[in-house]
Amino acid sequence: MNKKLPLSSLITKNNKKILLIVLDGLGDLPVQGGKTPLEIANIPHLDKLAKESAVGLHIPVDYGITPGSGPGHLALFGYDPIEHQIGRGVLEALGLGIELKNTDVAIRGNFATVQYKNNQPIIIDRRAGRISTEENKRIVEKIKKNLPEELEGVKVIIKSGKEHRVAIVLRFKEPLPPNSDLINDTDPQKEGMAPLKAQGKNEQSEKVAKIINLLIDKISEILKDEPKANYLLLRGISQKPQLTPFKEKYGLKAVAIAVYPMYKGLAKLVGMDIASLEGETLEDQIKTLKKLWKEYDFFFFHVKKTDSYGEDGNSQGKIKILEEFDKKLPQILELKPDVLAITGDHSTPCIIKGHSWHPVPLLINSPYVLGNMVQKFTERECFKGELGIIPAKKIMNLLLAHSLRLKKYGA
Amino acid sequence: MNKKLPLSSLITKNNKKILLIVLDGLGDLPVQGGKTPLEIANIPHLDKLAKESAVGLHIPVDYGITPGSGPGHLALFGYDPIEHQIGRGVLEALGLGIELKNTDVAIRGNFATVQYKNNQPIIIDRRAGRISTEENKRIVEKIKKNLPEELEGVKVIIKSGKEHRVAIVLRFKEPLPPNSDLINDTDPQKEGMAPLKAQGKNEQSEKVAKIINLLIDKISEILKDEPKANYLLLRGISQKPQLTPFKEKYGLKAVAIAVYPMYKGLAKLVGMDIASLEGETLEDQIKTLKKLWKEYDFFFFHVKKTDSYGEDGNSQGKIKILEEFDKKLPQILELKPDVLAITGDHSTPCIIKGHSWHPVPLLINSPYVLGNMVQKFTERECFKGELGIIPAKKIMNLLLAHSLRLKKYGA
Repeated sequence: MNKKLPLSSLITKNNKKILLIVLDGLGDLPVQGGKTPLEIANIPHLDKLAKESAVGLHIPVDYGITPGSGPGHLALFGYDPIEHQIGRGVLEALGLGIELKNTDVAIRGNFATVQYKNNQPIIIDRRAGRISTEENKRIVEKIKKNLPEELEGVKVIIKSGKEHRVAIVLRFKEPLPPNSDLINDTDPQKEGMAPLKAQGKNEQSEKVAKIINLLIDKISEILKDEPKANYLLLRGISQKPQLTPFKEKYGLKAVAIAVYPMYKGLAKLVGMDIASLEGETLEDQIKTLKKLWKEYDFFFFHVKKTDSYGEDGNSQGKIKILEEFDKKLPQILELKPDVLAITGDHSTPCIIKGHSWHPVPLLINSPYVLGNMVQKFTERECFKGELGIIPAKKIMNLLLAHSLRLKKYGA
Repeated sequence: MNKKLPLSSLITKNNKKILLIVLDGLGDLPVQGGKTPLEIANIPHLDKLAKESAVGLHIPVDYGITPGSGPGHLALFGYDPIEHQIGRGVLEALGLGIELKNTDVAIRGNFATVQYKNNQPIIIDRRAGRISTEENKRIVEKIKKNLPEELEGVKVIIKSGKEHRVAIVLRFKEPLPPNSDLINDTDPQKEGMAPLKAQGKNEQSEKVAKIINLLIDKISEILKDEPKANYLLLRGISQKPQLTPFKEKYGLKAVAIAVYPMYKGLAKLVGMDIASLEGETLEDQIKTLKKLWKEYDFFFFHVKKTDSYGEDGNSQGKIKILEEFDKKLPQILELKPDVLAITGDHSTPCIIKGHSWHPVPLLINSPYVLGNMVQKFTERECFKGELGIIPAKKIMNLLLAHSLRLKKYGA
């Protein structure tokens, strides 16, 4: 019915290097004197680059839609973020650095407080009084010590998150068929209610639900004497999405140079290699980029702090990290990437203190641009650029094109 | 396969007020000295607002497609105007102020002149010499007086339109199943031919077609001695479309503040309440807006005259109504809507004297805009704005986002 562009049939190979730099949460709104952090920051190298590049903005998911990091990055990697939805459990596991296989079901857990009435648990506090992360670690250790190695042949991986949060992975012996994760949350989202039983919506998910209910029984037994965290509520039960690996989709040998587990995890989902870093600074990331430059075709270089400062509403911090990145940019340019893209996965306006739906500045540099359309790399300037406002999922097409890797479509 | 964005799962509720002002037929083309009515008009309040807002243009249906009022408004309300088509009969009935139920089939009728040859009617004039509206009213009264109360249990509502036009609604006793309106027009679109029999394409529409044929027999009997309007041709036989109500789709309690029946009818189709007005002036509409301000989340405020003057090719009239609206704008701004959108449902260029396919100026004001990208609210300035050129059906996403009613998509 709806035919798709046969992209894979257009792809050719060459030795050109593509570097995609994601300044997480890059886009912003006016913070001071009507100016945005990008407009305030002293970023001469980025401004010069913008002038010599094709610039525009991208819309991560759709008009008005605020993306999480998952959809934001999938779109940048060229995967439709609506078609490929990443479950909350999967993202939580990736964020805590658990590597997921196709034998796995990942779950996001909250420690909670329950009271038993006639042996029936009733939820008193869905977050167990937001116990400290230290307390969380102690409890997870206690669970690990007392939980059998396997539940009916299924290995259980459990890892502490922040405060009351954990990630749980059920690792089966065999690859799981699709839709093995069609299971309700056990968290009823309300206090004063009993937790729900996990129920599968089909035969294969019913098998998984059975293990989940067994696991909850075991854990509540182990935690029964805890004053606060005496129960575990589960949400976002999910398998990792089936994504055509980067190499197969684009013919690119790709590596992620990222510090935070979630972004390494997302890159891994699309089949990128993950670079090991000597440290966590921008300098360390650049060092690794240089080291790996000959080995790969495609480099995903992720800078987290722009987003973190945006989330904190700290515009001064965001300005500073932009300036810091700008100072290091010449080191990166020395590598002479054939195609260089700089953008964000979404906007994180300081006045919103969170992700937003606003279009994200985008710059693509290659020998094949018009250029000379803007003077600076800012949100407002990007609206004047030659890329226009484009869906994020089309950016990879452009990067392939600018690296001369796409043959003509049709004769 | 093709998954859709699960918008309804992202919606949260809050108390923010969204005001959508539709200046019908807003967009235009140069009328004098190369300037459009918006460029000529003295509209300081709109210009100042544009400077402080996100501006752009929207495409109502598709590139090059000139929308009727139905598709134009459905798109503004966030319903895909291609997926949801409104039959001509339904629009005619709405335009004449008939409220439609799911038991109804609505039809657009033309009085016609026929001559009988061997008892077979042959169409001489498809519009009965464009009889006057007064003549039409007399004939409709005559039909009402002579037609039985019900035809085989089906109530017949008939209402005069302009000149030779009428709207007819067949009101059945039970809700009609979908596709009960798959029935041909009885108007063969040519003179010198016999009118066509109504025929259903399936079992349920065949039942409706039977009533229609019976109705035509009765009416032609009643009108047989009329010199001109002695027959009725039927077109656009249609049921009202099944649209998810606004409240369910967006969680918004919505009201329409409109003067003309068609726009009230369109708002009603998507489940809005319809405000009753004390008079028909802009002043009356604003008075009602103020009165209802606390009661609703979403206000659809429809100004008709911009379109009417466009249809007449009267650019001076259009300029005057724009200036009149601009003078009243401060009264509206005093209400401090959290999100204010001003746009049209389509362009009505004076030189075309009708609707057109041209993108329509759009302004969205909220605390979450870049702003300062344009100096005036005109077609040409809007092309420089931060909204770009967007499909009309995406505007509701933006209004929800700017009212902070959309949760993050994915983690």
